[in-house]
Amino acid sequence: MNSPAALPEPPYYSVIFASQRSTSDADEYGEAAARMVDLAARQPGFLGVDSARAASGFGLTVSYWRDEASIAAWKRDAEHAATRERGRNAWYDAFEVRVAKVERAYGRGRPA
Amino acid sequence: MNSPAALPEPPYYSVIFASQRSTSDADEYGEAAARMVDLAARQPGFLGVDSARAASGFGLTVSYWRDEASIAAWKRDAEHAATRERGRNAWYDAFEVRVAKVERAYGRGRPA
Repeated sequence: MNSPAALPEPPYYSVIFASQRSTSDADEYGEAAARMVDLAARQPGFLGVDSARAASGFGLTVSYWRDEASIAAWKRDAEHAATRERGRNAWYDAFEVRVAKVERAYGRGRPA
Repeated sequence: MNSPAALPEPPYYSVIFASQRSTSDADEYGEAAARMVDLAARQPGFLGVDSARAASGFGLTVSYWRDEASIAAWKRDAEHAATRERGRNAWYDAFEVRVAKVERAYGRGRPA
């Protein structure tokens, strides 16, 4: 994920997940995070994801979705719900989730 | 910036900036990025910012604003415009800007 996600024209929805990792469970967390990206990518309405975590442990993951119904369905996914619960209790010192409707977008795309 | 930004209740606006840094100009870029955060924080309507860049050079900065007028005014700021132009030509291999209206938010705030 070293280029911004290639997405259709707005409007679409985004889920902005900001989190501060705790220092625990690096291996378990890494595996679960990769699994959640794989699983999300197979959900109806998933458009893409951008993610970056700094050496400090602070990270941002923004996933993009066709509509609010797609976000709600992904939130109800049983494996996702279980992993989310585990994450909240074990992997993060703090987190915030913000659901936002993307109204316009522009950029210089990805490297040639 | 190692906790998610503390923000008022939605609705408010977000500017999601996803970018892949080039390998050039590390010092110049670092100084300009810090200066832009300082300058943005003094703009009317600025609510907060979350930012993370991975070792790969891929980064996300999400700034939060009271309304679209605040975003438009910040975009017109002369120093910001000049720095943005410099950034596009020299500091990024790729970038995308997405303007999104935050409709709801929840989380576990910041560490005690």
